[in-house]
Amino acid sequence: MAFTAAPFLYPTPSEAALKLHYIGRKIQDVQTPAAIIDAAVVRRNCKLMLESCAQLGVGFRAHVKTHKTTQLAKLQVGEDSSSVKLVASTVSEIENLLPWLLECKVAGREVSVLYGLPVTPSSVPRLSAIARMLGEGTVGVFVDHPSHVKILDEVQTTSWPGRIPVFVNIDVGYHREGVSATSAQLADIAYALKASERVHLLGLYTHLGQSYGVSSPEEALRSLAEELEGLEKGAIECLKITGAHESKDEKTQKVVLSLGATPTATSIQNFSLGSSDAGDAAQQYRKLLDRLNQSFAVEMHAGVYPVMDMQQLATRARPAQSHLDFSDLGLRTLVEVASLYPDRGEKPEALIAAGSIVLGREPCKSYPGWGVVTPWPGKTDQHYDPEGSRTGWIVGRISQEHGVLTWEGPRDQMRPLELGEKLLIWPNHACIAGVNFGWYLVVDSEVGDGDSVVDVWPRWRGW
Amino acid sequence: MAFTAAPFLYPTPSEAALKLHYIGRKIQDVQTPAAIIDAAVVRRNCKLMLESCAQLGVGFRAHVKTHKTTQLAKLQVGEDSSSVKLVASTVSEIENLLPWLLECKVAGREVSVLYGLPVTPSSVPRLSAIARMLGEGTVGVFVDHPSHVKILDEVQTTSWPGRIPVFVNIDVGYHREGVSATSAQLADIAYALKASERVHLLGLYTHLGQSYGVSSPEEALRSLAEELEGLEKGAIECLKITGAHESKDEKTQKVVLSLGATPTATSIQNFSLGSSDAGDAAQQYRKLLDRLNQSFAVEMHAGVYPVMDMQQLATRARPAQSHLDFSDLGLRTLVEVASLYPDRGEKPEALIAAGSIVLGREPCKSYPGWGVVTPWPGKTDQHYDPEGSRTGWIVGRISQEHGVLTWEGPRDQMRPLELGEKLLIWPNHACIAGVNFGWYLVVDSEVGDGDSVVDVWPRWRGW
Repeated sequence: MAFTAAPFLYPTPSEAALKLHYIGRKIQDVQTPAAIIDAAVVRRNCKLMLESCAQLGVGFRAHVKTHKTTQLAKLQVGEDSSSVKLVASTVSEIENLLPWLLECKVAGREVSVLYGLPVTPSSVPRLSAIARMLGEGTVGVFVDHPSHVKILDEVQTTSWPGRIPVFVNIDVGYHREGVSATSAQLADIAYALKASERVHLLGLYTHLGQSYGVSSPEEALRSLAEELEGLEKGAIECLKITGAHESKDEKTQKVVLSLGATPTATSIQNFSLGSSDAGDAAQQYRKLLDRLNQSFAVEMHAGVYPVMDMQQLATRARPAQSHLDFSDLGLRTLVEVASLYPDRGEKPEALIAAGSIVLGREPCKSYPGWGVVTPWPGKTDQHYDPEGSRTGWIVGRISQEHGVLTWEGPRDQMRPLELGEKLLIWPNHACIAGVNFGWYLVVDSEVGDGDSVVDVWPRWRGW
Repeated sequence: MAFTAAPFLYPTPSEAALKLHYIGRKIQDVQTPAAIIDAAVVRRNCKLMLESCAQLGVGFRAHVKTHKTTQLAKLQVGEDSSSVKLVASTVSEIENLLPWLLECKVAGREVSVLYGLPVTPSSVPRLSAIARMLGEGTVGVFVDHPSHVKILDEVQTTSWPGRIPVFVNIDVGYHREGVSATSAQLADIAYALKASERVHLLGLYTHLGQSYGVSSPEEALRSLAEELEGLEKGAIECLKITGAHESKDEKTQKVVLSLGATPTATSIQNFSLGSSDAGDAAQQYRKLLDRLNQSFAVEMHAGVYPVMDMQQLATRARPAQSHLDFSDLGLRTLVEVASLYPDRGEKPEALIAAGSIVLGREPCKSYPGWGVVTPWPGKTDQHYDPEGSRTGWIVGRISQEHGVLTWEGPRDQMRPLELGEKLLIWPNHACIAGVNFGWYLVVDSEVGDGDSVVDVWPRWRGW
């Protein structure tokens, strides 16, 4: 089947041109809206995740769908890691990663990249093309229906070399992709896998999306335990049929249990950061993790943790002493004040030339707005905090290209705004607030005043 | 101030390449997701709007922000119109319209394009550049704060030739942009306008976003009346200060009252379509419109009406006998079934490889989903209808790149789905459901089976 790779269909401007245009400029002076990443923050968030997993002896697989950039994917896996384990939500992401992944192969790094939706007939020709370039065992897929195995059984080895690594998606309660551990559908998949000569069962995978609803380290750890127990149950049911000897990672000789979502993945930092808000329970959860990691190769996955956002702050999944706070938010959106309505109603209001195409339309459970105005550029040290003063400007209403700022808190404490003033906003959900930008402008809060563009990271598009 | 025009920053692939790639192909065979426009439907919707306005003797200004394409902008204004009146939500849209607008000028057509947010300092250099190319009086802006007039007063005539046409934004209840007719802020703006030698008050403008909440022609017409009365009041207050002789359209010698939103703009079709669900009240509203159109030049504006969407169906703003129904929806989204979960819970479910980046995350007041699966390609003639059977597949849940289809209605009537099957979905809000696509694939239900791509319309991006 003919196809056209996403980088042909969705071009980005030349990276060299973007760098010439932006590097060295103050963000106050760039056209708005713009998506700004703080490199110092994302380096720190990425390092902490890798260290936490290493301390616990579990693997880590980086999800690239939040940022869709090669530069951030590199930070997620770590520069000196011998293995490069990734998962992507679109074939486009994998196609765009390819140039770097080929370099990784040449450098002798072990590459494993998963297409993160159950495999469809139309994705096979594109994934095959990538597998031919990266080699056997590098490109894996998800299955959660017997027909997925049938699709893979029909792929020729000349098209997709070697046995195709598969993960079975287990649904532990989020009801998006995946089947429950006790379902007949899981048994049917297992029988199809057992009969297949084209696939190799590498492990089981779950995404616990409902963990976004947690509000404490304790709740996040309980979610983690649910994921682990659901996956274990699924693995036992599945391996009863397929046989354990057929199903494992070549290196560890164990079946992989891959689990996570940023709240549960960051919650493991409760183990490595010493005494925890989660108290004694944390030790119990750790024991569960350690026990499963004996029989299986446990691997965490997460995507939004490098940049974080208002939704992640609201989960409070990392303990207080690790300081998960506004300084951990790596993505801010630069906008311009388009008008001022000081006397419109009970609250002063202002208009920004940025709406849901810029900021997304993603609610946050801790406050009723669509984004929070940061104190930048330091005219004030105050800002709205859903868990604190609740005094400051928020994006109170939103439409396609318009946002209405509303002042929350006492009127006499209002931070005055000027027409044309540039503001930085913390968005609710970083996976959505970036999608319409062609690139991120990168600043570094550890370099100078942190307001100069030091790099430009083009974002991928398409599917 | 240096700037870079959006078409440089956000390139689209070559239109010729896209056409070579897609024209003549069946939509069943193109990569998913894809945004599909039915040219026959949008031609009909555009024609009806122009005819309705012409019959009432009011002007029409086409909003281009929904589709962001030159091709649909042309249909909106009509091929043989002597004037080309447009409004855009971003400077990027105007920059991308420029090649066609220059052709219009050469052909002797009168061009008027408005930047649809209150004018910001940073937009002035880019708008000036466009005004220099299109000539005096062609590029207009919005003001709703005295500072906007100050910004314009500082623009040199060498930069932006002639007096700059402005519209004052009146807020008649939606509280997005605009000031209320009785506010001190409106008086301050009027004094600034009176004192200005750089601007020319062309009229007053309002967007009645809350009209999206209406549920009948009667309610839509009442919204229209509110807009008209609010604008009239604003005009009277404003003109008291500026003086009417300074403030008018050169051609009509009248002050323009520009009003609309698709529900209110389509509601005027109740007048021209004969007897109406809105009953006698419709005649009363028509009298109000006619009266104002004596003293002022009334102009309607709207944006989503060419393609319509589930939200617009839910307003029921057009009368029953004009058949505003599913056949008026010009935009559908092509997706692929990625998995099937017939036994997951109470309802059968399925997974599509399309989430909020594809479909948007815009609620619809008439049903609890994020999109409705159409009967295409004709395996069934049934589909979910919020006002009817409520039996069919809808997009029940959504995340970034995943959508979960849920079956609504009796289980034994379930339309069976196959893994890998392509489906077309009616999105809730067309202004958002298109934004991540680089182009629309155009079919024509009046040509053959209506499933072949007959054209490709590249979409603009950026701000």
